[in-house]
Amino acid sequence: MTEATAKPSAKLKLLDAAMSVIRIKGFSATSVDELCAAAGVTKGAFFHHFKSKDELGVAAADHWSETTSAMFAKAPYHDHADPFERVLAYVALRKDLLAGSLPEFTCVVGTMVQETYETSPAIRDACDRSISAHAETLEADIEAAMRDRHLRPEWTAKSLALHTQVVLQGAFILAKAKGGAEIAAESVDHLSRYLTLLFSPPKVERQS
Amino acid sequence: MTEATAKPSAKLKLLDAAMSVIRIKGFSATSVDELCAAAGVTKGAFFHHFKSKDELGVAAADHWSETTSAMFAKAPYHDHADPFERVLAYVALRKDLLAGSLPEFTCVVGTMVQETYETSPAIRDACDRSISAHAETLEADIEAAMRDRHLRPEWTAKSLALHTQVVLQGAFILAKAKGGAEIAAESVDHLSRYLTLLFSPPKVERQS
Repeated sequence: MTEATAKPSAKLKLLDAAMSVIRIKGFSATSVDELCAAAGVTKGAFFHHFKSKDELGVAAADHWSETTSAMFAKAPYHDHADPFERVLAYVALRKDLLAGSLPEFTCVVGTMVQETYETSPAIRDACDRSISAHAETLEADIEAAMRDRHLRPEWTAKSLALHTQVVLQGAFILAKAKGGAEIAAESVDHLSRYLTLLFSPPKVERQS
Repeated sequence: MTEATAKPSAKLKLLDAAMSVIRIKGFSATSVDELCAAAGVTKGAFFHHFKSKDELGVAAADHWSETTSAMFAKAPYHDHADPFERVLAYVALRKDLLAGSLPEFTCVVGTMVQETYETSPAIRDACDRSISAHAETLEADIEAAMRDRHLRPEWTAKSLALHTQVVLQGAFILAKAKGGAEIAAESVDHLSRYLTLLFSPPKVERQS
């Protein structure tokens, strides 16, 4: 982000600009000219790095994956000793992240795939990789929690991990529709409650 | 839908075309020319009915609300005697509707709001009205089920009704990312399981 380095990368500036602009107005409404203006680079620089806007879209999804996965890898929810507590703490973090303005907390790849799934298979696949790889980071903890609690359910750790992303993506849509995060936060609470119910042995009295 | 009537409405043709085209490529990528071509009407007819593409967007959201609410009002899930069974049967219907091609089963207003929430407040509000009014149709049944089961939970019927829409909207995004409905259907199963857990008295042994 610093301008002081000898060679600030035009590519990185374009990718960071894409993160912002796509979250504000979507992928289709974002022109190459706007991306260049937001990044402060020339159109020549754009086409030096990307053959097309679609290629930028794929790179934006990959960039999103890299930056967010680095953030989640370092987050303190991993520090809980109990795997189920790690899963719950991940969900609590996702609720905490529903802060600031809508473009700040909504999802680049969820937005892009909504518009491009039929028209750009390469972008769709990059968005799928991003969402699915993130969901996979939860699977080991879910599986460990299932073993700890001797659960042998009809659902899989993979399907539950993806379901957390379904709830988050849907929560972003309701946040956008409502112009605020309140309902989204309540949905994340429902997700947390679901996880707690799933992982609570049915015959033990609950503490609520 | 018939061409045999004396005056097929150009407005209705445009709205029906918008339902199809927006679900395929999103709102921003859809041009007025494309809508006219898909509807088989002139650009003059378009601007006779709509001052702008945004005005068409608002009308498309309202049209979506009208057509889908008529369909849901007539659906047989209302026939169950038990209100909780009605809620579960609604969710089962939503799972059954995850059939055919992605543009056939995904949501016009969920797609539009994703792209336009910052740039077109009128479309955003129309999308919110559509999603929220549909969620409201579930509230009375959820409330009756809460009374039947003597639940006094920390969540409200309204928040749970909106959560069902969050899961569905998120499921559509995962369906688009994956190019198919399998994960979406599993998420609707998770929603159904959550509802069952919420409405099951905790100390009664479950039948699973």
